[in-house]
Amino acid sequence: MLRKLALSFILIVATVGTSAVQAQDVDAEDTIAYRQSLYKLIFWNFGTIAGMARERIPFDRDEFRLRALRVSNFSRQLAEGYAEGSDSGAPTDARPEIWTNRADFDAKLADFQREAHKLYSMSAEAEVAALKQQFGVLGGTCKGCHDSYRKD
Amino acid sequence: MLRKLALSFILIVATVGTSAVQAQDVDAEDTIAYRQSLYKLIFWNFGTIAGMARERIPFDRDEFRLRALRVSNFSRQLAEGYAEGSDSGAPTDARPEIWTNRADFDAKLADFQREAHKLYSMSAEAEVAALKQQFGVLGGTCKGCHDSYRKD
Repeated sequence: MLRKLALSFILIVATVGTSAVQAQDVDAEDTIAYRQSLYKLIFWNFGTIAGMARERIPFDRDEFRLRALRVSNFSRQLAEGYAEGSDSGAPTDARPEIWTNRADFDAKLADFQREAHKLYSMSAEAEVAALKQQFGVLGGTCKGCHDSYRKD
Repeated sequence: MLRKLALSFILIVATVGTSAVQAQDVDAEDTIAYRQSLYKLIFWNFGTIAGMARERIPFDRDEFRLRALRVSNFSRQLAEGYAEGSDSGAPTDARPEIWTNRADFDAKLADFQREAHKLYSMSAEAEVAALKQQFGVLGGTCKGCHDSYRKD
């Protein structure tokens, strides 16, 4: 019986994935701090990309590519920062609609992930003009989510 | 002359690396927030590793490996969070000795990076006992730095 229970638990963890593994050790306050930290790091790295796209700093392909990779990686770490129950518990700019319109929120997050990965993929060889354009597309996915799900 | 100046600037950026690129857009407060965010993410992901190493949650190799990769990646992003001038400007647990004993601090950071990468490398195939041991070694590199460079 215990073994069966343990197996069920493992299956649940495997099915629900990362959130279930995390859920045992973290609370809403930690989860909110986790996602806010991710946004700080995204913003930090995106800043270098933006600086190059806007020609405020010299274009450096290796540096651009490194920052694009980091933003892409961070984008895939966001979902577990929006676990059920983390709509409150610490000051947060996240609107409660994230948890009531979850499918739409997840779709917007997927937009961000897809375009961030595309920017990274392109950065190996694409011309600067194309990277600037994709930088705009990526920025649009940030805005697309913030307009609906971030408090003013 | 202008072209020569521009070239010098590019060379400086290339020599000094990432910090120089960042330094144009960020201030001490942002830099402190950046490194604190990294530590939050390291702690978050290390928590899952620790949970498995201490058998509080079931061992899951894919999950362990994913978390080890993230910790390793984060470890390589820390250095730019200790730019010159970021010893103050916001509440921080970083001791000023980081900037006066820089070579020793950098060596301790390199210890952390090396052992984090080793844990990730091992995680593909190593037995759980070996991973637990390396988890201990990695934790030791955290403590090794905190004892000298983090305020109590």
